[in-house]
Amino acid sequence: MSKIIKKIGVLTSGGDAPGMNAAIRAVVRACAYYKIECVGVYRGYQGLIEGDFKLLSARHVSNIINRGGTILKSARSKDFRAKEGREKAYQEIQKEGIDALVLIGGDGTFTGGMVFNDEFNFPCIGIPGTIDNDIFGTNYTIGYDTALNTVVEVIDKIRDTASSHNRLFFVEVMGRDAGFIALNAGVGAGAEEILIPEEDLGLERLLESLKRTKRSGKSSSIVVVSEGDKIGKNVFELADYVEENLPQYEVRVSVLGHMQRGGSPSCFDRVLASRLGVKAVELLLDGKTNLMVGLLNNKVETTNLENAVKGHHHINKELLRVSDIMSI
Amino acid sequence: MSKIIKKIGVLTSGGDAPGMNAAIRAVVRACAYYKIECVGVYRGYQGLIEGDFKLLSARHVSNIINRGGTILKSARSKDFRAKEGREKAYQEIQKEGIDALVLIGGDGTFTGGMVFNDEFNFPCIGIPGTIDNDIFGTNYTIGYDTALNTVVEVIDKIRDTASSHNRLFFVEVMGRDAGFIALNAGVGAGAEEILIPEEDLGLERLLESLKRTKRSGKSSSIVVVSEGDKIGKNVFELADYVEENLPQYEVRVSVLGHMQRGGSPSCFDRVLASRLGVKAVELLLDGKTNLMVGLLNNKVETTNLENAVKGHHHINKELLRVSDIMSI
Amino acid sequence: MSKIIKKIGVLTSGGDAPGMNAAIRAVVRACAYYKIECVGVYRGYQGLIEGDFKLLSARHVSNIINRGGTILKSARSKDFRAKEGREKAYQEIQKEGIDALVLIGGDGTFTGGMVFNDEFNFPCIGIPGTIDNDIFGTNYTIGYDTALNTVVEVIDKIRDTASSHNRLFFVEVMGRDAGFIALNAGVGAGAEEILIPEEDLGLERLLESLKRTKRSGKSSSIVVVSEGDKIGKNVFELADYVEENLPQYEVRVSVLGHMQRGGSPSCFDRVLASRLGVKAVELLLDGKTNLMVGLLNNKVETTNLENAVKGHHHINKELLRVSDIMSI
Amino acid sequence: MSKIIKKIGVLTSGGDAPGMNAAIRAVVRACAYYKIECVGVYRGYQGLIEGDFKLLSARHVSNIINRGGTILKSARSKDFRAKEGREKAYQEIQKEGIDALVLIGGDGTFTGGMVFNDEFNFPCIGIPGTIDNDIFGTNYTIGYDTALNTVVEVIDKIRDTASSHNRLFFVEVMGRDAGFIALNAGVGAGAEEILIPEEDLGLERLLESLKRTKRSGKSSSIVVVSEGDKIGKNVFELADYVEENLPQYEVRVSVLGHMQRGGSPSCFDRVLASRLGVKAVELLLDGKTNLMVGLLNNKVETTNLENAVKGHHHINKELLRVSDIMSI
Repeated sequence: MSKIIKKIGVLTSGGDAPGMNAAIRAVVRACAYYKIECVGVYRGYQGLIEGDFKLLSARHVSNIINRGGTILKSARSKDFRAKEGREKAYQEIQKEGIDALVLIGGDGTFTGGMVFNDEFNFPCIGIPGTIDNDIFGTNYTIGYDTALNTVVEVIDKIRDTASSHNRLFFVEVMGRDAGFIALNAGVGAGAEEILIPEEDLGLERLLESLKRTKRSGKSSSIVVVSEGDKIGKNVFELADYVEENLPQYEVRVSVLGHMQRGGSPSCFDRVLASRLGVKAVELLLDGKTNLMVGLLNNKVETTNLENAVKGHHHINKELLRVSDIMSI
Repeated sequence: MSKIIKKIGVLTSGGDAPGMNAAIRAVVRACAYYKIECVGVYRGYQGLIEGDFKLLSARHVSNIINRGGTILKSARSKDFRAKEGREKAYQEIQKEGIDALVLIGGDGTFTGGMVFNDEFNFPCIGIPGTIDNDIFGTNYTIGYDTALNTVVEVIDKIRDTASSHNRLFFVEVMGRDAGFIALNAGVGAGAEEILIPEEDLGLERLLESLKRTKRSGKSSSIVVVSEGDKIGKNVFELADYVEENLPQYEVRVSVLGHMQRGGSPSCFDRVLASRLGVKAVELLLDGKTNLMVGLLNNKVETTNLENAVKGHHHINKELLRVSDIMSI
Repeated sequence: MSKIIKKIGVLTSGGDAPGMNAAIRAVVRACAYYKIECVGVYRGYQGLIEGDFKLLSARHVSNIINRGGTILKSARSKDFRAKEGREKAYQEIQKEGIDALVLIGGDGTFTGGMVFNDEFNFPCIGIPGTIDNDIFGTNYTIGYDTALNTVVEVIDKIRDTASSHNRLFFVEVMGRDAGFIALNAGVGAGAEEILIPEEDLGLERLLESLKRTKRSGKSSSIVVVSEGDKIGKNVFELADYVEENLPQYEVRVSVLGHMQRGGSPSCFDRVLASRLGVKAVELLLDGKTNLMVGLLNNKVETTNLENAVKGHHHINKELLRVSDIMSI
Repeated sequence: MSKIIKKIGVLTSGGDAPGMNAAIRAVVRACAYYKIECVGVYRGYQGLIEGDFKLLSARHVSNIINRGGTILKSARSKDFRAKEGREKAYQEIQKEGIDALVLIGGDGTFTGGMVFNDEFNFPCIGIPGTIDNDIFGTNYTIGYDTALNTVVEVIDKIRDTASSHNRLFFVEVMGRDAGFIALNAGVGAGAEEILIPEEDLGLERLLESLKRTKRSGKSSSIVVVSEGDKIGKNVFELADYVEENLPQYEVRVSVLGHMQRGGSPSCFDRVLASRLGVKAVELLLDGKTNLMVGLLNNKVETTNLENAVKGHHHINKELLRVSDIMSI
C-alpha cells in the first residue's frame, strides 16, 4: 500500500519552455487546495542533490502564469547520472520530508525520474514541458504552441523584408530530432519549402521546387529548415549551395535560436499547464507513480514514463501534403 | 451521379474571425493545385445575390495568411433569408458557372448553406470560422485560438494596473451563448472568478468567493465575464452590486469588445484554416456536399451541416474545476 | 548648506504607467552605484505615512525593466492631503533615516512633493510617469510611448473587423484633459477623425467629414475620441447621434479603458526611465531639490516642480493638420 | 524660377524599414490633398530606369500604414551608378511627366538623389527611412524606433531562457557603422555590456566586467554586440574567447539578423513617417529641392542632402554612462 502523501516536491529540468511557470503554479496551488505542502526544488536534479529547496505557498506563485522561463531554474545534472548523486538526492528528499515528486521537462527529465523511481521506489509523475513536442503520450507538450507563435511572428517580419527585396530566406528553427516546429510553423508562415529530419527529399527536389516557385511569379520565398534536417550539413551550406545553383535568387539565412524558448506563454500553453499540473498532484494523491500526464484527443490522460521516453511521437504527414498544396 | 466540379466559389459570412483569410487562401490554392477555377464571392450571401464575384488565382492570396479580417468582406444578408433572394443568388451562380460553394462562417452561415443546398441541390461545404468556438463537429473553430491569446494579453495588461492599485476588475469578453472564451481565457489569465452562460452560480457565491480571495492576501482580482452571463443584467450592474456589498474593493470594468475579432491569426489558427480549406475543396471534388469540415481529436473530420447547426458543442466542465483550484 | 544624502526613498503615486518599474530600477541602481542606500516606499504617499518601507539592493530590481505596473504599488492618499498626514510621513522618514525622495508620478504626485518640500524643507525630485503626457517640462512622460503603441495595436485589430464589415467605429482612449494619446495614436492608426479636448470642432463638422469619407470610397472608418472630448456627452451618445444622422453607417463603440495603462514598456520608455532615474539621484546628490527631470529636445533637463505642475504642455497642432491631410 | 509641380514620383531604396509604407501613404495622400498626381516608382532607382511606374490614388494606400516592408519594393541599382542609367531614368521620368521625386531611404539613396539633382536639375526631397538611425539631420530615422522594440522584445525572450539556465548570451544586432540600435536596445533590454563600433573598450575590460557581474550575484547576463563592433572579429569568436577565459560561464550566441527590418511599425514611426511625408510634398510644391526632411528637437526641419550624407549623427555618450550605472 502506498504511503500517504503530505509533501510534494516540484522541479523543472532540461531546456526551459514557456508555460513551465504556469505548470509550477498549478502544482503549488493544487497542493494548497488539497491541503498538503509543496516544495520547490531549484535547478532540476542538481538542486535535488544539493537540497536547494523552498517551501512554496499559493501566494509565492502569484503573477507567474504569464512569464516565460522557470522560476525554479533548470539545469543539466551530471551528478544525477551517477548512483551516488541519486543517493545523495534521496537523502536530501528524506531530510526535507518530501513524499513525491512532480518532474517538469522532456525525455531526459523523465529518464531521470524513471531510474529514481526504480531505485528508491519513490513516487514520480512527469509533466511534458519542452518546445520540441517530441514526447510520446501527449499531442502537445507545454511550450510548443508558444514557440510556434514566436516562430511565425518572426517569419512574418522576415517576410516583410524578403518581399520588399525579392529575396529567398532560409530560416532555421529548433528541432534536432523532430520536425514539429518546422512543419507547423512553416505551414503557418506560408513557407514555400519545409525541411525536416523525418523526410530527406534531397537537394535536387529542393532546387526544382525553388525554380518552380520563381516561375510562378512569387516575389519572395521562405524555406523553413529544422535544426536536425539531414539534407545539408547545415543551413549556411545549404544556402550557399542554392545560391550557386540558382543565381537568380539572392539568398539570406536567419537562425532563430534561443528566442524560441522564451516569451509569455500562449493561452493554450497556460491552460494545458494548469490542467496537467492539477492532474499530476491528484495522481500522486491517488497513489499513482511512474506516469506522465499528457493531452490526448483533448483529454488529460496518462502514459507510463517508460513509454513516454521510448515511444515515438510522429509528425502529421498530412501537413506535408497541405504544405505542398499551399506553396503552389 | 454528381456533376464534375470545375469552378468553386468561396465566401465568408457572419462575424469575421482571424484565420478566415488563411482559409480563403487554402481554398484558392487547393483549387489551383487541382487545376480548377476559384471565384471569390464578396460580402457573403449578399454578394452571391448581387453577383459580386472575382476570379482568384494562387497569387491573389499571397501575403494574406497573416492578416486578420477577411479580404472577401462579410455581411449579414436579409435578402438571402427570402426565397427570391436565394433564387437570384442561384441565377448569379449559374451565370458565373460556379459549380460548388465553400462557406466560411458560423451557425447562420451554415443554415443558409443547408437551405440553399436543399432548394437547388447545390454542393456546399462549410468551414467553421468564428471566435466563439460554439460549433458542433469541431473541437476548434478558426479564430478561437487567436481570440484567446488576444484576451489573455489584454488581461495581462489589466493585471499590471490592477495589482499596482489593489483593484478588482470585471472584464467582459465575447460569447453570447457560449462560455468558451471566458472559461479558457479566464484560466489562461489566472482569473479569480469566471462567469459563463452555462453556469449560473448566483450572486451570493460570487460575493463569498471574492471575500475569500481578499482574505487570502491577493493584491488584485480579475473576474472574467462572458457577454451572455446570466447572473447580472450586465457587467456594469454586476460591478455596482459587488462594490456596494464589498466596500473593501475598488471595482473597475473593462469591456473588451470588437478587438477580440481582429489581429494576426495564431499559428494554430493558420494551420487549422489551411487544413480545413484543402479538405473542403477535396470533398467537393469527391462529389460530397452538405458537410462541415472540422478538427476532431486532431484529425480533419466531417459532420452533416444539419448536425453542425443543431448539435451543441459543450464546454469542458473539468476546466471549471481547474479554475476553482487555481484561484485558491 | 545641504545635508549629505546617504539614503534615498523612492515611491510611485497616482495612475500607474509602463516604465515606472524601469525608473525604480534606475533609481535603485544609481544609488548602489554611488554607494548610498535606497528605500522603496510602498503605495505612494500612503506608504510614506504608514512607514511601509523596504531597503532595495541592485539585485531586488533584477528582471523588472520589462514589466508593466509598479512593484512599489501606487495609491491615492487622502491622509497626505492633510497636514497631520504629512507630519506623520515626515516622522516615518526621519525614523527610517531617509534623506531625500524621488517621486514618480504626475501632477498630483508633484503637488504633494512641493507641499512636502515647503513644509519640511525636504529634498524631493520628481520623475514624470503617466501615460497622459500632460506634464510641462518634458516632451515625453514615462509610459506615454507604450500607451500609444498599445492603442495603435488595438485599433489595428478593430480595423480588421471594421473593414470586413464596412463599419464605423468610435474608439475612446484615455486623456481626460489632454488629447496627446488620441491625437498621436489617431494619426498612427490612420483614424478618419480625432476628437480631443483641446479642439471642439462641433458635431456638424464631424457629420460633414464622415459623409465625405463615405463618398470617398473608404470601406471603414475609425474615429478616435479622447475621454475628455467636449463634443458629445460621452462616446456612446456621440455614436447614437451619428447613427441617427448618418443611417448609411453601421456604428460600433469600443472603450479601451485600463489596458492602456499596462503592458511591457517600449524601448523608448525603458531608456527614458533609465536616464531620468539616474539623473534624479545625481541631482539629489548634488544638493538639488524641488525639481522635475524631463526630456526636452532629447536632453535630460530640469524644471521647477511648481512650473511642472502649473505649466501647460500643449499638443502639437501641426499633427491635427497632418491628420486632416491623411484622412482625405 | 521653378516649374510648377503637377506630378510627384515616390520611391523606396536601400534596406527596407518599418514605416516606409506609412511614408509612402503620406506622400500619396498629401498629393491628393493638394490635387496633384502621385506616381509610385517600383524597386527604387532600378524601377526609375525601367519605367516601372504606377499612378497611386489616396485609396491605393489604404490599410498599409500598419504594414512592414515597402509596397513599392526596394532594390540596389548598379545601373543607376552609371551616367547612362541615370540618363535613361531621366528619359522615363520625362515620358511619364513626373516633375519631382520623393526619395525614401538612407545614405545611398540620398547620394543617388544628389547626383541626379545635379545632373538634371531635377527636384528631389529625401525622407530618412532606415532602421540604423545613422543619418545626419534627424534625431530619428523612420524604422529605428520599431527596430528597437523588436530587438528589446527578442532579448526579453532570450533573457527568460538565459536566467532559467544561468547563461551568458551574446546577442548581435544590426548596425555596421553605428551603434544606435545596440546602445539603445541594450539599455532598454537591461544588457550587462554593450559593444558598439564607436567605442573599442578592449577584450580585457569586457572580461573584467563579466567577472564583476558574476560576483555581483546576477543569474544571467546579456551582452549586446553591434554588427560593426571592432573588438572581436565577429560575435562567435568573441563568445569563444570569453568561454575560454571565463569557464564559469556557459555562453550562447544569437544573431538577430533580418527580422530587425520587419514588423508592423510603432506608433512613433507611423507618426514620424506621416509628418515627414506631408512635409516632403509641401517642400516640393514650394519649389524647394535637394533637401532631406527630418525630426530635430521634435520639429520637422530640413537639411541639405549633401550635409545629410556627409554629416555624422553621433550616438549619445550619456547613454553609455547610464548603461554602466545600470549594470552594477
